[in-house]
Amino acid sequence: MNEKIRIAVDAMGGDYAPAAVVEGSILAQNENHRDLELILVGEREKINQELSRLKATDSPLTVQNASEMVTMNDQAVESLRKKDSSIPVGMRLQKQREVDAFVSGGNTGAVMAHALMTLGRLEGVNRPAIASFLPSEKGIVVVLDAGANTECKAQNLYQFGVMGSIYTSYILRKKNPRIGLLSIGEESTKGNELTLSTYKFLSEDPTLNFIGNVEGRDVLKGTCDVVVCDGFVGNIVLKFAESIDGFLTWLVKKRVKESLLFRLGAFLVKVSIRDLRKVLDYAEYGGAPLLGVNGVCIVCHGESPPKAIKNALKMAADMVRERVNEHITKVLWDKEKNN
Amino acid sequence: MNEKIRIAVDAMGGDYAPAAVVEGSILAQNENHRDLELILVGEREKINQELSRLKATDSPLTVQNASEMVTMNDQAVESLRKKDSSIPVGMRLQKQREVDAFVSGGNTGAVMAHALMTLGRLEGVNRPAIASFLPSEKGIVVVLDAGANTECKAQNLYQFGVMGSIYTSYILRKKNPRIGLLSIGEESTKGNELTLSTYKFLSEDPTLNFIGNVEGRDVLKGTCDVVVCDGFVGNIVLKFAESIDGFLTWLVKKRVKESLLFRLGAFLVKVSIRDLRKVLDYAEYGGAPLLGVNGVCIVCHGESPPKAIKNALKMAADMVRERVNEHITKVLWDKEKNN
Repeated sequence: MNEKIRIAVDAMGGDYAPAAVVEGSILAQNENHRDLELILVGEREKINQELSRLKATDSPLTVQNASEMVTMNDQAVESLRKKDSSIPVGMRLQKQREVDAFVSGGNTGAVMAHALMTLGRLEGVNRPAIASFLPSEKGIVVVLDAGANTECKAQNLYQFGVMGSIYTSYILRKKNPRIGLLSIGEESTKGNELTLSTYKFLSEDPTLNFIGNVEGRDVLKGTCDVVVCDGFVGNIVLKFAESIDGFLTWLVKKRVKESLLFRLGAFLVKVSIRDLRKVLDYAEYGGAPLLGVNGVCIVCHGESPPKAIKNALKMAADMVRERVNEHITKVLWDKEKNN
Repeated sequence: MNEKIRIAVDAMGGDYAPAAVVEGSILAQNENHRDLELILVGEREKINQELSRLKATDSPLTVQNASEMVTMNDQAVESLRKKDSSIPVGMRLQKQREVDAFVSGGNTGAVMAHALMTLGRLEGVNRPAIASFLPSEKGIVVVLDAGANTECKAQNLYQFGVMGSIYTSYILRKKNPRIGLLSIGEESTKGNELTLSTYKFLSEDPTLNFIGNVEGRDVLKGTCDVVVCDGFVGNIVLKFAESIDGFLTWLVKKRVKESLLFRLGAFLVKVSIRDLRKVLDYAEYGGAPLLGVNGVCIVCHGESPPKAIKNALKMAADMVRERVNEHITKVLWDKEKNN
């Protein structure tokens, strides 16, 4: 029998916490009851209330009390001072090897800051990144960095490429994933100083399937499986993509008001937009893994419904099972030692 | 009676040149026959063939021969060597004040390079920018720079804000346009080094209606009228936006294959996507003005249909009539003199 995978869940993180988190954890536990051992971290009383409400007081979930709260408005630095909030408590559980992974729907900056402080970086990794996901005509595309690093060097972007490649091949199970460098022209000579020097790093690694520069229009086409960019550009593109659904809804509502034909067909258009929302909403993929920290941490969208929490727990379990961090260290630490 | 506005049109620029350009020019001429005086620049014989085909040999359009061709594949530098291609010939006509403006559907880099070489910059402007357009829930949004400047300083971005504000108020006729700085958080402390220092410049100019940082998700919402960013970020966002229509078409085709209901309603969804294409396609706005060059130059999308050429000609005429360049110089040159 396989050993169980133990995951700490931030019961206080996210807009619908603790309700959505507890419910999502129960869903995951029920679907993977032999594999997973979940520990809900947060205010014990509130979590127990949710367990009662969901008639799950006899579920195998355990509770780890955390007495303080980090809010979405806390700056990363402020949040670091709250030593007994659910995020640092969860991180410490992982540091002490009482759990293998931590899932949180809390403030991304705070989760990253605590991960760096408590778990540190993997050997060989200069800057951990947040990986996020977008749909494309050829399946899921991984975009990193999604916002952890606003100023990057070519070496950082190169490492994002390596980490994205490993994540994509082990977790998304794509063989030899195509790595693209987000720039403003396909030619290697197009871009800014950062991408021009990153291009060199990426193209000189024979283990990577680097396909060269990709443009803004290539992302949704699925020209590559991994889009490499700095956190400033990644964050803007991802947030822009998230807003498409709202814009289309607005556009259709306007048309429905103007046209009888559209009023009749509004239902179909709505279904089509619901489809789009589904593929564009990154909560559907579970969450965003922090790649390069010395542990497994997944950040869920603040608005994560129970299903997203469940998917994030599956994602965390996959990362532990597939030893993603070992693969990353093997490549990047070996490289560093040989330099 | 007003003096006529004279515009040189690059008859050889764009994927459907000279046919689409000649046709678009005739459309513009017919709609504004008293105002506009158009000069088609390119291979005389080919242009005359088009005029014959369109039964417009007696139209008031004139032809200025240009014996060389710049292709979409020419690098900006290579294109500079072709002194007798339609772009430099058109620019020289403007430099010699034989025309007031130049419209081209050719290679954007080549048009910008020739504009800088032949016309130069407006007094007070450090770096000209390409302004492009996106739809939003509150009307057209101007995005600049759209790709001319991949490395920028805060001073450049500040000037993009000023030029965007002037363009928006005089040409799009929005009073006191809202200027937003594209970044990764609304707070003034969020961003990269460039946006943090640009924030200061923009907020210290009392004549600008600077609303602070905007995020990727704010663009289509129409939170601001002018989105200020460097050309690297602007190019990526604009090309990403252009690709949405193709992605949705793919998504709908997939659903139509899967579902009978969708097959019945496919027509409506297609109409809705056509709507979207219309609002996302920047050819609909006419073209992208180069702001900050000492002249009026509009670059049209390579795939511009006649209607887009016609709209670009109207845009050029508006810029001449409203003296946009005088307003830009007044603000930026006065500022430079006072520093």
